[in-house]
Amino acid sequence: VRAKKSAALTGRTAEKKPGLPVITLLTDFGTSDYFVGAMKGAILSRNPNVLLVDITHDIPPQNIESGAFTLLAAYKSLPLGTIHLVVVDPGVGSARRPIVVEAGGHFFVGPDNGLFSYVYERESKWRVFQLTNNEYFAESPCPTFHGRDLFGPVAAALAAGVKPDSLGPLVEDPVRLKPLKPELNHKGKLRARVIHIDRFGNCITNITRDDLPTGANTKLIVRKKTIKEIREYFAEGKSGPFAIWGSAGFLEIAVKNGSAAEVLHATIGDTVHVLQK
Amino acid sequence: VRAKKSAALTGRTAEKKPGLPVITLLTDFGTSDYFVGAMKGAILSRNPNVLLVDITHDIPPQNIESGAFTLLAAYKSLPLGTIHLVVVDPGVGSARRPIVVEAGGHFFVGPDNGLFSYVYERESKWRVFQLTNNEYFAESPCPTFHGRDLFGPVAAALAAGVKPDSLGPLVEDPVRLKPLKPELNHKGKLRARVIHIDRFGNCITNITRDDLPTGANTKLIVRKKTIKEIREYFAEGKSGPFAIWGSAGFLEIAVKNGSAAEVLHATIGDTVHVLQK
Amino acid sequence: VRAKKSAALTGRTAEKKPGLPVITLLTDFGTSDYFVGAMKGAILSRNPNVLLVDITHDIPPQNIESGAFTLLAAYKSLPLGTIHLVVVDPGVGSARRPIVVEAGGHFFVGPDNGLFSYVYERESKWRVFQLTNNEYFAESPCPTFHGRDLFGPVAAALAAGVKPDSLGPLVEDPVRLKPLKPELNHKGKLRARVIHIDRFGNCITNITRDDLPTGANTKLIVRKKTIKEIREYFAEGKSGPFAIWGSAGFLEIAVKNGSAAEVLHATIGDTVHVLQK
Repeated sequence: VRAKKSAALTGRTAEKKPGLPVITLLTDFGTSDYFVGAMKGAILSRNPNVLLVDITHDIPPQNIESGAFTLLAAYKSLPLGTIHLVVVDPGVGSARRPIVVEAGGHFFVGPDNGLFSYVYERESKWRVFQLTNNEYFAESPCPTFHGRDLFGPVAAALAAGVKPDSLGPLVEDPVRLKPLKPELNHKGKLRARVIHIDRFGNCITNITRDDLPTGANTKLIVRKKTIKEIREYFAEGKSGPFAIWGSAGFLEIAVKNGSAAEVLHATIGDTVHVLQK
Repeated sequence: VRAKKSAALTGRTAEKKPGLPVITLLTDFGTSDYFVGAMKGAILSRNPNVLLVDITHDIPPQNIESGAFTLLAAYKSLPLGTIHLVVVDPGVGSARRPIVVEAGGHFFVGPDNGLFSYVYERESKWRVFQLTNNEYFAESPCPTFHGRDLFGPVAAALAAGVKPDSLGPLVEDPVRLKPLKPELNHKGKLRARVIHIDRFGNCITNITRDDLPTGANTKLIVRKKTIKEIREYFAEGKSGPFAIWGSAGFLEIAVKNGSAAEVLHATIGDTVHVLQK
Repeated sequence: VRAKKSAALTGRTAEKKPGLPVITLLTDFGTSDYFVGAMKGAILSRNPNVLLVDITHDIPPQNIESGAFTLLAAYKSLPLGTIHLVVVDPGVGSARRPIVVEAGGHFFVGPDNGLFSYVYERESKWRVFQLTNNEYFAESPCPTFHGRDLFGPVAAALAAGVKPDSLGPLVEDPVRLKPLKPELNHKGKLRARVIHIDRFGNCITNITRDDLPTGANTKLIVRKKTIKEIREYFAEGKSGPFAIWGSAGFLEIAVKNGSAAEVLHATIGDTVHVLQK
């Protein structure tokens, strides 16, 4: 192997690189059952020339918001052309629509229950198609496991070059969750919320840099505790909770060598009041 | 990439597709230690041209029945020719035989302790060979880690085309667990059991469609609770436990948006009485 | 595929085999967040021609010793030329140096905080370079996620053939943890410690075969309990804790079909007194 100082390696472009098509997997299946293995098998049985990448299978069971956030935080890191298979599906087998989404050079396959809301919110252009063309599905899809019998097989087909618009009719009104953008309350103040708590106990808010005027002196109030400081690194400074711009592009509340969620007794959905002057 | 509307993609055949040979991994090693990485390394050091697919590493420690069930539920979803490396091995290093099984177009490598019982039960034809030919083993296999030093290397060799019958003598009497099929009690009534509880709390029984006369009005009794309803989807209907044909081919007891295991206080091994009229 | 009875398959050599370059991942990121998926995406976006192998992502948060031990136990099982991406990084974003290590035919990428100590201890030759050449980094690395924006991209570059010495200046004094070798106390007695507790509750000590005179009658004392027996297999013998030479090359304390850590109330760091006669 010789060194190739390509534009791809230096990460300065978003051009499509050669290589097997990537299918990511993001589910609430857990990793202790046969579900993930069976879904991967269903993909590989149809199209072995793919690269499977797990995002996570530990979305809290049936928690669509958590799935939607995790997808938002990860998908742009994957190569253009990646197919994201996202299955958090409390309505599996019912009338909810199976869909494929094309947005920002990525593809997304899963149920139409709001999982792709934040992709619609971030991308200026997107198209959604309902999966009605059953020629790529398993012969008798099990009503309780569309990941294996419907979504996985469709992802395998997309990876082989099947076009989204050949899979079914355009969907104009996909299901969307409450917007991620913080609200302005009746006094004109920003009211944000905790949208995710990560493995380290960091509390990710829905506040982006666009939501805060630069140079403003910002305070956050969560569970009656005031956070006054925005830091650059975790390792900096003293103890106590502080805010930091996180790797998903949102303001996070953290504690050095500890869990902000524990210190603040914070949970997902908690209101974050933003005070600025 | 061009669309290829192949028989493979549409999933209507079981023909062998081109692609790297697949080795699945199914163990009780957990994922917090170096075990899985070392076993994968041992495979790749011998044969880098394989595709590794984790089924799960979270089989409860040394629980052979759970490993056997998970294998049964997953293996048919993988491509024909797949090598399933299954290591739940309380007797590692002792006199229990290491074996390779050829059945239904798949290969299975692991200890002869019952792990492959349900494969023998499902497949009409199978052959078992004891792994006595040590030329593919690590030089001095560690008596506590045959996954890395014996089974992994043999799986790598199988993936390179080594034939099972070159690995050792035929085994006529492989160890088998209690059959999966429900029993008939002395009154001629079907007596089934809970064989697995999944991540969502669904209680998988050992009842298959073949065990229930079609059209019969069936009730299940578990822990003195009666389940009267067989539904098509999870999302359907009202609260309370119901039965549903699960994705592994067995009747499951489920609760909408909840855990049947919690509601019923059910555990693996619980008796399921089947009443029909 | 034809059988190839190569030196590689029989594991009798350490020659480099053809195949995609392997990048292993060893972190404390957990598997429930987007972190691992985003880091893999960052690698694949730059260099899709790699094989990603997870060692574990469940190192206890910010526990450098545990990361260092797990790396030590796993890395030699991977093919020569493997790039080990190791991110347990409490100092992320601060002044701690990002480094690449070349040792024993393997490469290691991560923070200079002691993670590679046991590699330095085991290998007779190693070279360390500070990652100052930012041409392979993401354009504006996030100070809280160097795994995605710095270490992952550098691993992708190494896999494409970029040379470690092109990435920055030589580091003469990498950070090192307390040596793994057991101490001799003031009475000339060996004083070891528990360095890891695995999924099964086995307590791995830092005692190697080199530390114990062969033929000596050895007793271990942990938490005031005396362990008199060194066994060959887990399945052997009676109940009660016993010692066994583990698969990572260290003496382990185990209990048949149970957890030695529970039986002994042992935790990582516990002193292990070694008595010999």
